[in-house]
Amino acid sequence: MKLTVAMLICGGLAAAHSVERWRVYEVTLAGPAAGNPFVDVRLQAAFHFRNRIVTVDGFYDGNSTYRIRFMPDEIGEWNYETSSNAPELNGKRGSFAATAPSAANHGPARVRYTTHFAYEDGTPYIPIGTTAYAWIHQGDELEKQTLETLRSSPFNKIRMCIFPKDYLYNKNEPVYYPFERSAGGTNDYTRFVPQFWAHLERRILDLQALGIEADLILFHPYDRWGYNNMPADANDLYLRYVVARLAAYRNVWWSMANEWDFVRTKNVGDWDRFFRIVQESDPYAHLRSIHQGNQMYDHAKPWITHVSWQGSDMAKIREFVQQYRKPVIDDECQYEGTIPSNWGNISAQELVRRFWMGTVGGGYVGHGETYLDPNDILWWSKGGKLKGQSPARIAFLRKILEAAPPEGLNSIPGQTAGAGQPGQYYLFYFDSHQPAESDFNLAPGTKYRADIIDPWEMTITPVPGTFEGGFTLKLPGKPYLAVRFHKGD
Amino acid sequence: MKLTVAMLICGGLAAAHSVERWRVYEVTLAGPAAGNPFVDVRLQAAFHFRNRIVTVDGFYDGNSTYRIRFMPDEIGEWNYETSSNAPELNGKRGSFAATAPSAANHGPARVRYTTHFAYEDGTPYIPIGTTAYAWIHQGDELEKQTLETLRSSPFNKIRMCIFPKDYLYNKNEPVYYPFERSAGGTNDYTRFVPQFWAHLERRILDLQALGIEADLILFHPYDRWGYNNMPADANDLYLRYVVARLAAYRNVWWSMANEWDFVRTKNVGDWDRFFRIVQESDPYAHLRSIHQGNQMYDHAKPWITHVSWQGSDMAKIREFVQQYRKPVIDDECQYEGTIPSNWGNISAQELVRRFWMGTVGGGYVGHGETYLDPNDILWWSKGGKLKGQSPARIAFLRKILEAAPPEGLNSIPGQTAGAGQPGQYYLFYFDSHQPAESDFNLAPGTKYRADIIDPWEMTITPVPGTFEGGFTLKLPGKPYLAVRFHKGD
Repeated sequence: MKLTVAMLICGGLAAAHSVERWRVYEVTLAGPAAGNPFVDVRLQAAFHFRNRIVTVDGFYDGNSTYRIRFMPDEIGEWNYETSSNAPELNGKRGSFAATAPSAANHGPARVRYTTHFAYEDGTPYIPIGTTAYAWIHQGDELEKQTLETLRSSPFNKIRMCIFPKDYLYNKNEPVYYPFERSAGGTNDYTRFVPQFWAHLERRILDLQALGIEADLILFHPYDRWGYNNMPADANDLYLRYVVARLAAYRNVWWSMANEWDFVRTKNVGDWDRFFRIVQESDPYAHLRSIHQGNQMYDHAKPWITHVSWQGSDMAKIREFVQQYRKPVIDDECQYEGTIPSNWGNISAQELVRRFWMGTVGGGYVGHGETYLDPNDILWWSKGGKLKGQSPARIAFLRKILEAAPPEGLNSIPGQTAGAGQPGQYYLFYFDSHQPAESDFNLAPGTKYRADIIDPWEMTITPVPGTFEGGFTLKLPGKPYLAVRFHKGD
Repeated sequence: MKLTVAMLICGGLAAAHSVERWRVYEVTLAGPAAGNPFVDVRLQAAFHFRNRIVTVDGFYDGNSTYRIRFMPDEIGEWNYETSSNAPELNGKRGSFAATAPSAANHGPARVRYTTHFAYEDGTPYIPIGTTAYAWIHQGDELEKQTLETLRSSPFNKIRMCIFPKDYLYNKNEPVYYPFERSAGGTNDYTRFVPQFWAHLERRILDLQALGIEADLILFHPYDRWGYNNMPADANDLYLRYVVARLAAYRNVWWSMANEWDFVRTKNVGDWDRFFRIVQESDPYAHLRSIHQGNQMYDHAKPWITHVSWQGSDMAKIREFVQQYRKPVIDDECQYEGTIPSNWGNISAQELVRRFWMGTVGGGYVGHGETYLDPNDILWWSKGGKLKGQSPARIAFLRKILEAAPPEGLNSIPGQTAGAGQPGQYYLFYFDSHQPAESDFNLAPGTKYRADIIDPWEMTITPVPGTFEGGFTLKLPGKPYLAVRFHKGD
């Protein structure tokens, strides 16, 4: 019998007896409802695989219901035992079998080859991200449209906030609140609203079904409800609750903040503490980073798995790769659109150019779209439909990258921006340069086939013959082209 | 009687009795030919205007002929008296009248309004430069074609080397050598070849007749004849000779080097000494700068009148203007063309973009063209004909700048790159941004007319109505446009 995740979540108190590797095994227990179970009750489970023990926090889900979610990363038999300060929740035991993953399940994304990514099963993961900060706060109709749009898009990662957003074009009230909130607008940060979290989880699973990583933004500055200004213990409780509820979903990433330096209510010590909390609580070591407005957080810190950067000087990407020796994602290089703000009005051509510049810099680039809309439905925040011309070109780039070596593309010194795996594969991008011929000096001992790629017209034109070592290649004398060399006689 | 410069130069021994202000008054004297007159004979003249005395070096022009060239900067009677260690040249007196300049003669270019230029008579000078390093070394036929091309071009400044050039696409032998040279290739750096210098002077005057400033490059690294590796005293003698011969031409600028940091034979102390020699010798204080390859010379030094910079990061221009408080010319932001080298293969669109970026940064940008040519005649070095699409757009920009306030355009803080004179005039350039509307906040108390400018299509589209203070303007949602506001009801 093959259990779906939905069944596991909604299946009541009886735990399932098997689950796919890297899906969610959920233990549901009845327990105390008196007092404030969110803060009064501690619940953990120790999951055993042979001699290995993985300790996982449970959480209160309202209505006398407690849950422990676990993502097994080994195939075979797992046993668990709970511990709690509530006698009804303590000492509960069970076992289940983790079975082979289905074809689309490659496990969580990991850093691989130092500056690139792969899923845990070794399948390369090439992040092609987009941004829709507040898409889960828009109501079912628009959220379903967003999912439909994503289904036919090239994107396999989305930056999204847990908290609702108050900003330009973002004045609507969210459907759910994360914490109990009085009619007068007073939050009780010690009481979570299960409906809010169940909705978020549904969206994370919707994304998972589409093969999309949820790059969850835990804090951000654009707030009118109070979430940006919670006391320190509320922040910490929130983080532990988030991790307990969400870490078992293989497609979550932790983005500690959008524009952390624009958050005036927290200092670097706070952010460091937040990272330590998440790192300690998360049994699966999901990817962790933090995104800046102007001032970069120190991405050399050990809990940062990859550099999440905002910037439009694409030459920086190569520098950051060299500096940090971690994967670099420019997840906000400005957005295709027409709004007055500079960060949201670059042309599709320019965004495509930036994707290519980041790629040949050895890093990754994210998409966003901000076309003025009569109903203020801008993709970058609310989702909906894509209107722009860049996604088709980003899809074209994604196909090219998927056909590249699984070790990823590392930038190669030289006057033309290029990246590759020397001896195997090279991708050069000429930006605004339009040479009628160009000199190349490839690793000797290999014969290469060459293609001239037009990233905007989405054409790949093979060049007759093979190439080796140092040579001059005739080019069309047109700007914004790329040249690819791949091993082949 | 109106005297032409050609008559003054070629007119033999009798000095003319009148000359236009800012043209060349030349005193010609017969003197000793024995020994080495270039080093043995000192010759100076003191030119008196009322109680003011301007001291000018003379030079030996071969064939027992000595000349003193002087550019009067005041209208009225001038008297002179020579001094020399050669008795035949000593104590010669004369006088002449400096007359009002003709319409096209505005005097030498000067720094004005701190970061801009004007001719000495106050007429704004907006440098729209091009580069043809070795054009005077190509023989009459090609040189005349270059002059014809310049005549119908937008350029009013040209970067050009005194010495011939040895480099890619530049392997032909020059027509003239600056110093006597044996058949075996040995130079006598103490003996100048008058034909070389007379030819150079003819070209400087050809440019002057076209209204073009000659940005003379005194040293450069691309050499096979020895000029890059002369002894220190030969360098100094050369500089004094250059100044004595050329400083009286109002359209000369001193560019101490092209890519000074690529010249391995000289150190910073040498360059500083060169500047002091030129500064001390030049009675007219022509503009002085130096151009780098990678490492910038310290443009804060007092003898640097303006920043001559090579670079394609156009945001630097604004920074340099702020940093140095001198005019900034990016005279090599890469060239329109198709050669393999990155510095010589940007598209016309990109070069036009860079001109606009530099302009709204409060600085100036230079042109160059490097299309591959079957006969290796690339404009950037040899001159000839222009093939590219940028000059027409640069001419369009020049017209716009000539219609702007004479005080020049100073960059204005804000998210969209803009420059102007607050309260009078603003020019904004959107680069790759394509807002469908944009917010402006102009100095209050003035009504402005607005134009939407397409720098590539070369259109200026007036926007109906007037604008004042803070407002939102609808825009076409197309990248690479500019908006101009100018005072007007």
